[in-house]
Amino acid sequence: MSQTHQNLALVLRDAIQSNNFDNAFAAIKSLRPVDLADVLEELEPSLGWRLLERLPSRAEVFTYFEPEQQVRLAREFPRATLAALVSEMPADERTDLFKRFDQNQRDMLLPALAHAEREDIRKLSSFVEGTAGALMTSDYAMLKKDMTVAQAMAYLRDEAPDAETIYQAYVVDEQRNLLGVVSLRDLILADLNKSLQDLMTSDVVRALVTDDQEDIAKKIARYDLLALPITDEEGVLVGIVTYDDAMDVVSEEVTEDIHKSAGVSTIIGNLKDASIGLLYRKRVFWLVLLVFGNLFSGAGIAHFEDIIAANIVLVFFLPLLVDSGGNAGSQSATLMVRALATGEVVMRDWLYLIGREALVALALGVTMAAAVSILGYIRGDEVIALVLALSMVSIVMIGCMIGMSLPFVLSKFNFDPASASAPLITSVCDAVGVVIYLFIAAHFLADVSIA
Amino acid sequence: MSQTHQNLALVLRDAIQSNNFDNAFAAIKSLRPVDLADVLEELEPSLGWRLLERLPSRAEVFTYFEPEQQVRLAREFPRATLAALVSEMPADERTDLFKRFDQNQRDMLLPALAHAEREDIRKLSSFVEGTAGALMTSDYAMLKKDMTVAQAMAYLRDEAPDAETIYQAYVVDEQRNLLGVVSLRDLILADLNKSLQDLMTSDVVRALVTDDQEDIAKKIARYDLLALPITDEEGVLVGIVTYDDAMDVVSEEVTEDIHKSAGVSTIIGNLKDASIGLLYRKRVFWLVLLVFGNLFSGAGIAHFEDIIAANIVLVFFLPLLVDSGGNAGSQSATLMVRALATGEVVMRDWLYLIGREALVALALGVTMAAAVSILGYIRGDEVIALVLALSMVSIVMIGCMIGMSLPFVLSKFNFDPASASAPLITSVCDAVGVVIYLFIAAHFLADVSIA
Repeated sequence: MSQTHQNLALVLRDAIQSNNFDNAFAAIKSLRPVDLADVLEELEPSLGWRLLERLPSRAEVFTYFEPEQQVRLAREFPRATLAALVSEMPADERTDLFKRFDQNQRDMLLPALAHAEREDIRKLSSFVEGTAGALMTSDYAMLKKDMTVAQAMAYLRDEAPDAETIYQAYVVDEQRNLLGVVSLRDLILADLNKSLQDLMTSDVVRALVTDDQEDIAKKIARYDLLALPITDEEGVLVGIVTYDDAMDVVSEEVTEDIHKSAGVSTIIGNLKDASIGLLYRKRVFWLVLLVFGNLFSGAGIAHFEDIIAANIVLVFFLPLLVDSGGNAGSQSATLMVRALATGEVVMRDWLYLIGREALVALALGVTMAAAVSILGYIRGDEVIALVLALSMVSIVMIGCMIGMSLPFVLSKFNFDPASASAPLITSVCDAVGVVIYLFIAAHFLADVSIA
Repeated sequence: MSQTHQNLALVLRDAIQSNNFDNAFAAIKSLRPVDLADVLEELEPSLGWRLLERLPSRAEVFTYFEPEQQVRLAREFPRATLAALVSEMPADERTDLFKRFDQNQRDMLLPALAHAEREDIRKLSSFVEGTAGALMTSDYAMLKKDMTVAQAMAYLRDEAPDAETIYQAYVVDEQRNLLGVVSLRDLILADLNKSLQDLMTSDVVRALVTDDQEDIAKKIARYDLLALPITDEEGVLVGIVTYDDAMDVVSEEVTEDIHKSAGVSTIIGNLKDASIGLLYRKRVFWLVLLVFGNLFSGAGIAHFEDIIAANIVLVFFLPLLVDSGGNAGSQSATLMVRALATGEVVMRDWLYLIGREALVALALGVTMAAAVSILGYIRGDEVIALVLALSMVSIVMIGCMIGMSLPFVLSKFNFDPASASAPLITSVCDAVGVVIYLFIAAHFLADVSIA
């Protein structure tokens, strides 16, 4: 929300409170719907609503509100006005709003809607979240294959669908089986008497209503589509997913992956609006699990208690060594998880990548060993420096191997590779690092004490 | 690359080697350009090229090859054929290819191109990487404001620009100043005799040629645009950025942010193709820096050496406590970095968020303290349990505060908040955690020994 929008909100509040709607309209004249929604969200729902209901573009502005705000605003609306607004919304947005309503609001709204709209809501809301069905809209243009180009264009003109759907029209038979697609570009470039059957592309990129929304988004990006037609198992056209909804899915999935990388289960909705309870629940699981996971590091330390007691200097370098393994391992895991998510890397690349990673890890380990052995020599002696150097190389190499392999292993067993989070990798590498470090220390320091 | 594509590549190799191009064409007839590129990438460049040069859609297929593969293939082409192919490519792709060529290849290619194309390459390649200028294309339709709808449609039909650019046409004056935009939808719905001046939207969403590519992508997503017109400082139209290029930018920026979250500087290009040297250089900086950063943890431990020597059991819990602070802090930082990147959260939300975070951190800390004090009681006694519980709550709370604040502080001083990486947070939290833990331990364990 920019400063301009905040100032505008103040002006609007005054104008609406004094019923001066001419002033209010003048102030927002040059705003685009998405910007107007930003401004109206700053006002109290009852005030915002009084301006909104007078706007010709009210349904479009309304769709840009945050979901929580939509539900809050809807409570302010008289039933008839809410029904009118809902009828003007695109079918997919309308269904999303309806799914957020409680039972009371649903019961209140449904009888006020036309039969076709009720049916549409019922159908669209029946699909599982995260599938093409839950993402698609029923606003699209259908043409018949025996239409001419002139007829098709006249039909599109009359139906005047939304800007985002007029550019692709779908050719179907009597049973709505998807036969082909024609773009508005094809139509305006073609002879007016040509039949759609001869013009259409019959090999249509399509998806099933049960397909995962992530696959839908990937298909739209891969084939640079404006919209992807969705069919049921029999090939009957049931909806389309538009590219802008696909972009939103990509952004959601990325947020999910990024949150997982820090061991946070997905948060639904805007971070700013999340409650303390929700944030607690989404974060506590991995944190507590890793507390118990760290028992292994502790057990490792307990096993080598005598050598530590005899060489307290070892403790000085403990956090450094175990951190380094975790850091290097997290890097490997992060690179791999992202490459798997974008499709740059697939399962069969595993052997090549693990080989290359071993060489990268060796180079990293040797560099870090050089750094740490200088510190060890200053603080201790040349034996400590040797112990630290050997430990560092081993810990970094093993950390990287774990970090690189875990996403592949998770993927192999059909878990989300993004679960190979930094906290998990860190904790695993810690336990392994402690054991390696103290094992090497025990070996060399025992030798020295004998000597 | 799917199994089908691999099999197809084998069939194609045989067909091309035996000069049986009819068979080769039959095999790829139903493939879309992006899929065909996938298959051809599996073949040796010289073989792939022999099929590619015979394809009507060769320029489009070529644009789908990986950048390295494009350069490799281009070396196989006779000069005249390469020039013809380059001429058929979209202006932005052509420029990207040219920028990847070495001086020899450029000197060889340029004289074979038409004057207008040479000029176009020279202009487009002069913009700084990461700006709108480097992302935009010069393939778009320009109309005059005194044209009628019928004239505009006739013009668009004749020019027949690419599918992705015909849907938005830009109205300019003699000096190419951007006056307005009309969509193909506006045109086909309007009266044929209407003038563009009356039809066009004159309040055009636009961007400057020097704008950051991330802002370009955000604008395209915010206003659901198919293309965004780019002007110079004087308002002269110099290019457009299409939505599919914006989607690619979003994906690149996300990869950059994710890599930074693990302390990896950005890798240019595909992970699979990255060399060992490149990977080493991109990863070593943070790892070595953090080795030295860990000196602070070490110094903290050195300060409390006596208390550790007297209570070796403290070492047992050291990795667990410092990890927990780092883990909780990484979660906070990750949530915040992503929310700042998507724009869910802005600077002025800082005070509210830090307050809420304190409460979430307290709840998380108490839960984790309960878990760790049970372990402490089993392994030690009730004083150890108390020391662990108090340390855990303090460390988790301070870790979360650091994790939440660092991205804001970085953002405030115009650094990328994504630099608040998990390794950095972990290392900072470790140093702080060690001091807190041993300070609390010194206090209570000293008390006990006096009693």
